Amino acid sequence: MYAVIFRAEILELDAEYAAMARRMRDLAIDQYGCMEFVACTADNTEIAISYWENEEQIQQWKQNAEHMVAQEKGRTKWYGSYTVQVVEVVRAYSFIP
Amino acid sequence: MYAVIFRAEILELDAEYAAMARRMRDLAIDQYGCMEFVACTADNTEIAISYWENEEQIQQWKQNAEHMVAQEKGRTKWYGSYTVQVVEVVRAYSFIP
Repeated sequence: MYAVIFRAEILELDAEYAAMARRMRDLAIDQYGCMEFVACTADNTEIAISYWENEEQIQQWKQNAEHMVAQEKGRTKWYGSYTVQVVEVVRAYSFIP
Repeated sequence: MYAVIFRAEILELDAEYAAMARRMRDLAIDQYGCMEFVACTADNTEIAISYWENEEQIQQWKQNAEHMVAQEKGRTKWYGSYTVQVVEVVRAYSFIP
């Protein structure tokens, strides 16, 4: 399993951002095979992690037309900077009482 | 480079938690080789990611005595559940205008 860790410094999140974020999440899950999406926003930091079966899905999702528009808005409007890390899950464990 | 993704459902975060979180971060960085630590807490969700050179460092940090006390407090007091994923960074890129 692979994951994409997205970490951003937030400049300004408006109503358009909230709608776009929901739309991107739905698109990734419904049409590109994203298995899980988790996000956390606090102060001026956003961390979002998406999980995928393979790297091809990640590449294809990156090139989706609507997603590319969202990425451009991110760079010009919402985020001061961001980092994307593509990672492979080596092992995992959970605490669920 | 490796990372540890910690995702938790928060039950209750008290003053002891804040002090413990700071202490754990300092210990990991100062004594175990942790290269970077980022965290985000919002509503009842916490996402924390630490970055490491290799898996041995991660294993050693997991077994630190103070850290084991913190893990136990996490399970009995602060978190309803959590997931730990050890991942290897495959590639990364940044947007820094």
